[in-house]
This record gives sequence, C-alpha cells and structure tokens, in this order.
Amino acid sequence: MLPKVTLIAIGTELVALGRADTNGEWLAARIVRAGYEIEQTLRVADDMILLASVFQSALERGNVVISTGGLGPTEDDRTRAALAAAAGVSLVRDDVRLALLRGLFAARSIPFGPGQARQADRPAGAEWIDNPFGSAPGLDLRRGGGRLFALPGVPAEMKAMFDAHVAPALGTGRGVLHRVLRIASRGEGTVDDELKDVYATPGLSVTILSHPGQLELHLRVVAGPEAQRTIATVEREVRARLGDAVYGADADTLASVAGALLAARGETVGTAESCTAGLLAAALTEPPGSSVWFRGGLIVYADVLKRSLAGVAAETLARHGAVSEAVAGELAAGARERLGADWGIGVTGIAGPAGGGADKPVGTVHIAIRGPRGERNRRYLFHGDRGQVRAHTVNAALDGLRRLAGSPA
Amino acid sequence: MLPKVTLIAIGTELVALGRADTNGEWLAARIVRAGYEIEQTLRVADDMILLASVFQSALERGNVVISTGGLGPTEDDRTRAALAAAAGVSLVRDDVRLALLRGLFAARSIPFGPGQARQADRPAGAEWIDNPFGSAPGLDLRRGGGRLFALPGVPAEMKAMFDAHVAPALGTGRGVLHRVLRIASRGEGTVDDELKDVYATPGLSVTILSHPGQLELHLRVVAGPEAQRTIATVEREVRARLGDAVYGADADTLASVAGALLAARGETVGTAESCTAGLLAAALTEPPGSSVWFRGGLIVYADVLKRSLAGVAAETLARHGAVSEAVAGELAAGARERLGADWGIGVTGIAGPAGGGADKPVGTVHIAIRGPRGERNRRYLFHGDRGQVRAHTVNAALDGLRRLAGSPA
Repeated sequence: MLPKVTLIAIGTELVALGRADTNGEWLAARIVRAGYEIEQTLRVADDMILLASVFQSALERGNVVISTGGLGPTEDDRTRAALAAAAGVSLVRDDVRLALLRGLFAARSIPFGPGQARQADRPAGAEWIDNPFGSAPGLDLRRGGGRLFALPGVPAEMKAMFDAHVAPALGTGRGVLHRVLRIASRGEGTVDDELKDVYATPGLSVTILSHPGQLELHLRVVAGPEAQRTIATVEREVRARLGDAVYGADADTLASVAGALLAARGETVGTAESCTAGLLAAALTEPPGSSVWFRGGLIVYADVLKRSLAGVAAETLARHGAVSEAVAGELAAGARERLGADWGIGVTGIAGPAGGGADKPVGTVHIAIRGPRGERNRRYLFHGDRGQVRAHTVNAALDGLRRLAGSPA
Repeated sequence: MLPKVTLIAIGTELVALGRADTNGEWLAARIVRAGYEIEQTLRVADDMILLASVFQSALERGNVVISTGGLGPTEDDRTRAALAAAAGVSLVRDDVRLALLRGLFAARSIPFGPGQARQADRPAGAEWIDNPFGSAPGLDLRRGGGRLFALPGVPAEMKAMFDAHVAPALGTGRGVLHRVLRIASRGEGTVDDELKDVYATPGLSVTILSHPGQLELHLRVVAGPEAQRTIATVEREVRARLGDAVYGADADTLASVAGALLAARGETVGTAESCTAGLLAAALTEPPGSSVWFRGGLIVYADVLKRSLAGVAAETLARHGAVSEAVAGELAAGARERLGADWGIGVTGIAGPAGGGADKPVGTVHIAIRGPRGERNRRYLFHGDRGQVRAHTVNAALDGLRRLAGSPA
C-alpha cells in the first residue's frame, strides 16, 4: 500500500480571499498522474500553532506531505518553525547554507538582513532542496512513516523543485492507473444510465466531471496484474455504448481533435460568429500550430456587418430575424467563401441576460456548418448565464465540426 | 474578536482529481463579504477517522466550521458519524425526521431503503437544517466555543441552505471592510515599491493578486469607528500615486470600464486580431449590453486575409512582416473602416510556442489603436506560454482602449 498524499498551501492571503490554488491544482495533476492518491488538500493561514498541528497530524498518518509557501524572509513565513515544532526537533541555523545565501545576495547586490538569514534555518535532521530560481531553499524531512517536502509558493520555483527533487524521490507510485475519456453533447444523467453496470466493474472507480457541453469520465483502477486490462476493457465497452460521443482521451480537446482531422486532409476552417464574438475562433486556435488549418473569422455583432462581411442577405435577416437557422446557414456559407476556407461555421444566438423573447428565449442558439463532406444545422436552447451559454455554444460548434470533418468523403 | 471560519469540502472524488472546489469558492466569497475571516479551507477524502479528527481540531480552535458533502444515503457518506465521533456524542435516529423522509420518498414514488433511513441520523444535540431541494438534511452543532454547519455537496441545495440557515445564524460579521482596487499595466514589484509606506498604515492588511497584465490590490481593515475612513484615505493615496494605472474598483473589469467610456460618448469599437484570434472581441463582449458599443471584429490568421478583410497593403506585409507596428496600424485602421466603428484595434504577434526568431522572439506583440481622440502604437514582449501571451495581449489592448477612450477631445 502506497502512502497517501496531503497537499498544504500556506498563506493567509490564499485563504482569506478564497482564490483558486493554482499551485495545488498543478501538484494534484502531477501526483495523480504519477499514480499516487491524494487524501486531503489544505489551505492554511500563516499561524504557527495551526500549521504545526496540521503538519503533525499528516505526518502521523504516514502521509507524504507537500507544502507550498511560507519559506520567505519575512515574519509571516512560518513553515520552517512550524515544521520543527511538528517534528519535535529544534530549528538550527546552517552555516554552510548561510554562506551560500550571502554569496547569492552579494552577487546580485541585494542587501542581506536578518530576515534573509532565517532562510538558512532548518529543523534538525531535514535536508535542503535547492532552489534554482530564488533564494528560499526547500526542506525534505522524514518523520516516522511520513515524509514532508516544503516548497516555496512562487510557482516557477515550486514547479522546478518538484520536478528536480520531489518527483524522483517519490518515484512512480504505480498505485493507480488513470484514464480520462472525453465525451461531447451528452448529459451526465443519460451517460450514467447507459454505463450503470460498467461502473460496477470490480476494482474500478469512476468519476464524471461536467462542463458546458462536455463530460470527462475518469476511470481509475488500483495497480495490479489485471489493472491495464481492466481499464482497456472498460474503455472498449464505454466506446461501444456511447459511440462517437466519445471524442478523445486524456489530453485531447475538441479543438485539437477537430484540427487533427482537418490537418490530415489538408483542409481549413473559418468562422462567422455573433453571440460568441470570437470565442469559437479563440478555442480553435488554442492548440499550437493551429494556423495550419485555421484561416480566420468574422465577428458580426451588428446586423449590418452580417450583411457586409459575411454576405447574409438583407431579406433573410428581415424575414427570419438575426437568430435563425437561415442566418446561421448564410453565416457558415459566408465564412467559407469570404475566408477561403474548406469548412465554414456560422453561429448566432441570444447569450443574455437581455434580448430574449417568448419564441426565442435567452439561450437560443443556431449553429450551422458547411463543408466539402456535409453540412449541419442545429437549434439549441442552452441554460445558464451569459458565460455558460457562450461556452456551451463553442463546444457544440466544435463537436459538430469534428463529427463532420471526420466523416468519410 | 469574531470566530474564524474553517471550510471543509468532503469527498474522495474532489480530492483525488484535484479539481477546483466551486462550492468552497462560493462560500468563501459569501463569508469574506459578510466580514468573517477564513482560517483554513480543507478538502478531505471520505475517511471516517480523518474526518472526525479534522472536525474535532477545528471545533477545538473555536472555529465556525462549514462542511459540504458526505450527507447522502450511501456508505461513503460519513459526515454524520464523523461529526458524532468528533463531538464525543452518539448518533441517534430521529423518528420524526424519519417519518418526514418516508413521506417525501413516498410522494415521489422512490424506494426508501436503509441508506435513506440513515439520513435521519444525527449526533445527539445537533439541530436539523432543512433542505428545500433534496432529501439530505443538514446539521447544526454547537460544541464548546465552536459551531459546525454540515451542508450537502449539491450546489443548489448547499447554497439555499447557507442563505436560509447559516447566514442568518452567523449574522453580519462586520469584522472586515474589503475594497479591491484594479490596476493595469504595472508590475507587482513597482507597485510594491511605490506603496511600501502605504502598506504600513495601522490596521490595514494588503494583498496583491497578479494576473497577466493586471493586478488586484485587496485592502482590508478590521471594523471599527475609523475603518471606513482608513480605507478611503488609503484608496485616495493609492490613486494619487499610481494615477490612471488604477482603472477601477471591486467588480469593474477593463472591458466594462472601456465600454462605459464609449457608451457615454455614443462611440463604438471594432477589432482586427491575429495572434489573439477573437479573444479580444470576446473580452469586449463579456459585459452584458456590449452590443451598444461593440460592432464586430476581423480574425485574420492567414496573411491573405489581413489584406482582403482588413485592407493591409501587400507592400506593408512584404516590407515589415506580419508582426510589425506597420501591420498593426493598418489592421486598426482597417477595423475602424471595414466595421464602421469609431475606434479600431489591431493586434498582431507571436503567441508561440513556434514561430519566434532572433529579432522577433515568441511573445513579441504589436497593438495599435486608432480613433477620434487619439492613436497608440505599442510593441510588447510578453512572457509565458501561448495562453499567457494571449491573455497579456488582450489586457494590454483593453487598457490602451480605456486610456484613449477616456481622454478629452
């Protein structure tokens, strides 16, 4: 049984403002991918007694503990002292490290005060973790069955020190195999129903994460002789049941999958967007190298631009209104023609909060796609606020594109 | 002195996948706004012993504890039992609540099993918190100086129960006044230097959060007769020193500020983007009602589109290259003319990871703005990955627009 991991982010400002802990998200992804299980993630204010008790209880549980923050030169930086208190050892100034720090500061002509000198303090028995980018070294402390790595909170320093020291020290956990299947245009409820008996596969743990227009199906199996085969069997079964709703796995995105399909055929795409106002084009160009298959886009918020830029007929606008299947179709055709692209996507809708009516409520969106191997016209009614309606729209359009672009000639 | 708050999100899937805790972010915002201080936020796996120890240590510190999750009908739902263990009391089945739950399930024709019955268990002495949307009731437990509210993890249920029960029970903390000043195009280091003595204002606590091209300066003062005046004095001083780098406060965004300046004068803006590929237009249309002042945009990834759509001269492209001040200027002028907008913004750059060279490394971006009250041409060298370069570019363009749009005729 592998030890479990406790992540601790230290800093009153982190806690007090309730912000996302991006260091923690980065570390969690690394640790899960390495095959370890995370047992708890904590964000703790700069409070000596609280910190010491948190360190102590995690070490007592035999956890691998990774902390970020609290290693700087100021009074607020209490990780070193808390760690010594938790381990029941004294804090000792390391003369060699002190000389090293003095040299570092002298080389940069930065004053070296008592605060800086505190960065040479370590709990007796702890080892240093070198910091390639900053002055604050990290600490590596073993205690009973537990082991604690204290890293600085500056992301670039933390990441470099994790990769150079912590990851090799941990080794590959091989504790858990983790596979993510990516699903588009299906609700969590229907997927749950279709996969209920698959979820019951012995040794398998399943989590669904839901995003606007997308689901992530996380499959995890504890390592063992059958683990690889279990994951493969489950994946095959999921793909058989959900068909082409499964668009990819692991790091794939809808845009990267659609782009690869286009690139393989030497085809290109262009966009004409109203309510999403550039978000679709931005998503299509998120993968590096997208200039191979993305030509450009038209953002036609004002109706007069739908005509002048995308070539939508005045009569179509007058008869059907700007949010209509007919206008979406002409936008797609216009994008294709005016942008010299093989595929054109037209999007028009009401993202809200204002602009909705009885027959076209907020969330009404039309998406049209035109291309050499097919076309598609869809009307949607998306729920959520302005941002969610726009996010749903982008993912529905990308899903439509990858379905058509992947279809046979 | 007000009690401090501990937030605990319960659920192995939350911890194991290292995802953002959106319940926790929602709660943190409410709690900070109510004037309370958060001391720690924890995410904990469904482990009885761990949960009980976490509850116990938070209650012992006299904290207000708010937990989410672990109140459902399955074996994994261990909040009730862990809470009883932490409080050192027994878990008691409540017959009245049991009858209530049975009735609820019967009305919906859902089978009622032993798992459901467990939702009628509560630690002796705890009070129920009614759940308006689901079957799992919450728990309200006082213990020594501490008080714990256990809420379900389903966001809609949790939020309704927080607002109906927890918020009134806590009352307004009035512990902390909180003001956010928003700053563009200044580095954290220079702002720190300029404000060093302001930070030392008695009773003031300052946190800077850094985003690409933007800073948030959080000012917090513990309530008291002078608190309002202290915040106002500090804000005046910060604005005096940083001048128009302070673009807004609290919920303002660069786009909302720029949009309001345009709307006040009845002016409009349009965009011609290369490397940001629609992100600038998407940011400009994030504020509801942006159709008043946003016309549309051109996304000109392919060079031939820079010519055909935005009217960039072939000679300019040939002589200066696509990433140049001259091309940015012609893009801005083209956006203005072709989109019928008062203001035009042109953006061209190298977002990476490929495409950089010795004289134009990755991160090189040119932004040009043309309008009735001025123009602006800037070259930037942004650091970071593809996403960060694009985010920096959008914020620099928005900052340029709000500076020019706000200038006198």
